[in-house]
Amino acid sequence: MLCAKTTISASEGFQHNRMWLNDEELPFEEDSRLMRCLKGVQRLALMNGSQKVSLSWKVHIASCNNFPTAAGLASSAAGYACLVFSLARLYGIPLNEELTTIARQGSGSACRSLFGGFVQWHRGVLDDGRDSVAKPIVSAQHWPNMHVLILVVNDERKKTSSTNGMQRSVTTSQLIQHRVDKIVPERTENLKKAIEARDFQSFAEITMKDSNQFHAIALDTYPPCVYMNDVSHAIASFVHTYNKTMGTVHAAYTFDAGPNACIYVLKENVAKLLAAVQKEFPNDSIDSSQYLRGLPVSIDSPESNIEKYANSATDNPINTAAVHRKAIGMLNIQPKSLLKYIIHTKVGDGPCQLSDDNSLLINGLPLSH
Amino acid sequence: MLCAKTTISASEGFQHNRMWLNDEELPFEEDSRLMRCLKGVQRLALMNGSQKVSLSWKVHIASCNNFPTAAGLASSAAGYACLVFSLARLYGIPLNEELTTIARQGSGSACRSLFGGFVQWHRGVLDDGRDSVAKPIVSAQHWPNMHVLILVVNDERKKTSSTNGMQRSVTTSQLIQHRVDKIVPERTENLKKAIEARDFQSFAEITMKDSNQFHAIALDTYPPCVYMNDVSHAIASFVHTYNKTMGTVHAAYTFDAGPNACIYVLKENVAKLLAAVQKEFPNDSIDSSQYLRGLPVSIDSPESNIEKYANSATDNPINTAAVHRKAIGMLNIQPKSLLKYIIHTKVGDGPCQLSDDNSLLINGLPLSH
Repeated sequence: MLCAKTTISASEGFQHNRMWLNDEELPFEEDSRLMRCLKGVQRLALMNGSQKVSLSWKVHIASCNNFPTAAGLASSAAGYACLVFSLARLYGIPLNEELTTIARQGSGSACRSLFGGFVQWHRGVLDDGRDSVAKPIVSAQHWPNMHVLILVVNDERKKTSSTNGMQRSVTTSQLIQHRVDKIVPERTENLKKAIEARDFQSFAEITMKDSNQFHAIALDTYPPCVYMNDVSHAIASFVHTYNKTMGTVHAAYTFDAGPNACIYVLKENVAKLLAAVQKEFPNDSIDSSQYLRGLPVSIDSPESNIEKYANSATDNPINTAAVHRKAIGMLNIQPKSLLKYIIHTKVGDGPCQLSDDNSLLINGLPLSH
Repeated sequence: MLCAKTTISASEGFQHNRMWLNDEELPFEEDSRLMRCLKGVQRLALMNGSQKVSLSWKVHIASCNNFPTAAGLASSAAGYACLVFSLARLYGIPLNEELTTIARQGSGSACRSLFGGFVQWHRGVLDDGRDSVAKPIVSAQHWPNMHVLILVVNDERKKTSSTNGMQRSVTTSQLIQHRVDKIVPERTENLKKAIEARDFQSFAEITMKDSNQFHAIALDTYPPCVYMNDVSHAIASFVHTYNKTMGTVHAAYTFDAGPNACIYVLKENVAKLLAAVQKEFPNDSIDSSQYLRGLPVSIDSPESNIEKYANSATDNPINTAAVHRKAIGMLNIQPKSLLKYIIHTKVGDGPCQLSDDNSLLINGLPLSH
């Protein structure tokens, strides 16, 4: 699975705050994002009167993550959430909303990653972001069959940093204020209702519309920010075609600040959807263990999947199989190898503390040193 | 040059209304768009009391255009404008705004193509479109050095019809109403002022922002309409980079309902811009007469163009050459043959009547019959 792991030691004997990311040392004390997170958690410890570790001691931090670098898969969100979670454990602070505000100082999306399940970020109104917090909506157990296929797109273009892009949108898009004031509040409420009711149809439609609108705003930025590419749009079009032919919404795409697709799909529909993805987006690596990563799916040929689903527990299995066969038949066949690989995952539980034998530090230094 | 030509005959002896487009006969009387144009002009002739040709006579129409088919180069706008212009000549109706309303029944953009120069479409408020007219802003002579490079993109994807796409945007985009009410009116006024003042900088910025916003709305449509592709976005990015390095706005892109770029550029900057285009978008066909179409440009190598522009009439020629050399040096080099060909043209004079020896009909039948 994709994950970020962090170990932190504090000691009276350490001379400086130091940090290693994937075994490479970073200039920690010159890194304002990292320092804001450290100082933020220390300030909270001070306010809470936490005495677990002296605030004057320097820290050594080792972190690793197995996310593809800068693939737009939120590796920095996971990394900063993990860092702030670990710092909170170090200083004995319980998980709370103030920590999400601190994580946000590291990476905007990190605030949502401190909790598991479905989480809402509340922007707040203060300029300094003190009231910008994330709050849990429901836990992962509320909707346990909410799965995700991440289609990682082969893309060699230079990336726009998502932080820079958003700042430029705020100052130059003439549509963004209307979106923020008039559209996002209602959509957020409806999306929460859909999540609470486990209403996949509504969830899917709002998710896709909002992804499209986010990218519309990016395009309305000047000069424009373009995160999706031709393959991303082919994936979105595939999802609409597939849903239409299936007669019901099985899949919902969303694209972050990059070309990769995150497709929400209920667990019982994963294998069918995957068969369709593999039909439209063929890849020579389909049989490789590196091509389909994450949670196991029974990946037979599309045809045998159809047969299998003809025998699975549905209202009308034979009809479902016929519909799925028709959906598969309606698909375009794209050129080979547009996708780099596929990750199968699900809405998770959020950060957790591992046992000591997972430590990335020995005597305050990374294992490899 | 790209153009549409139309010849119309009317005769007491014709049994049916017939039409040939590029020598292929169309089912004229079953084609509601064509019939709306014919009936519309005939109604106008009746109202005007025009007696030149009897309205009871059937017509034979031959039309040809040399636009690449469905390349998104407004061939239907040119075709319907030419048709309505020719019908007006047939029935002796002077060019007027009512004709633009009729041309609009054929193809939305055709209403603007009846006049030369810069033209504004006034949407109107009536449901039936009776008050939807185009009006000239200034003639082509007002800004004679306003030239255009059309970069025709190699693209094999299926097209969304622009009429269908716009209808879906109107019903499903949650941003379009804000654009129509709050943004377009002010931009239109500012764009007209820029045209009247021949202010290329303002013209360019409004043009690019509005192109981006049009495509943003298309993306906010559900399911989304995607007209630009990766090459289109690479062209837009090229224009921003080129302008930035030149220190002044030399080029302004706009994209219609397709992937091809229309780049406005003043005549004195065409050769420099073209050299930059050919550096970033190399093509094996650069030396072919089919690759660069339309008005002649001195197409030497980029380097010799730079030298030439070092000696041309500018405020500070040596500095300009250095800046242009720097701009060329800053460009990316894209993979070969992303462009199919380039058309060099300029803002034109609108439809005109040709002499009889250009007729496409002999005895009421196409020349080739």
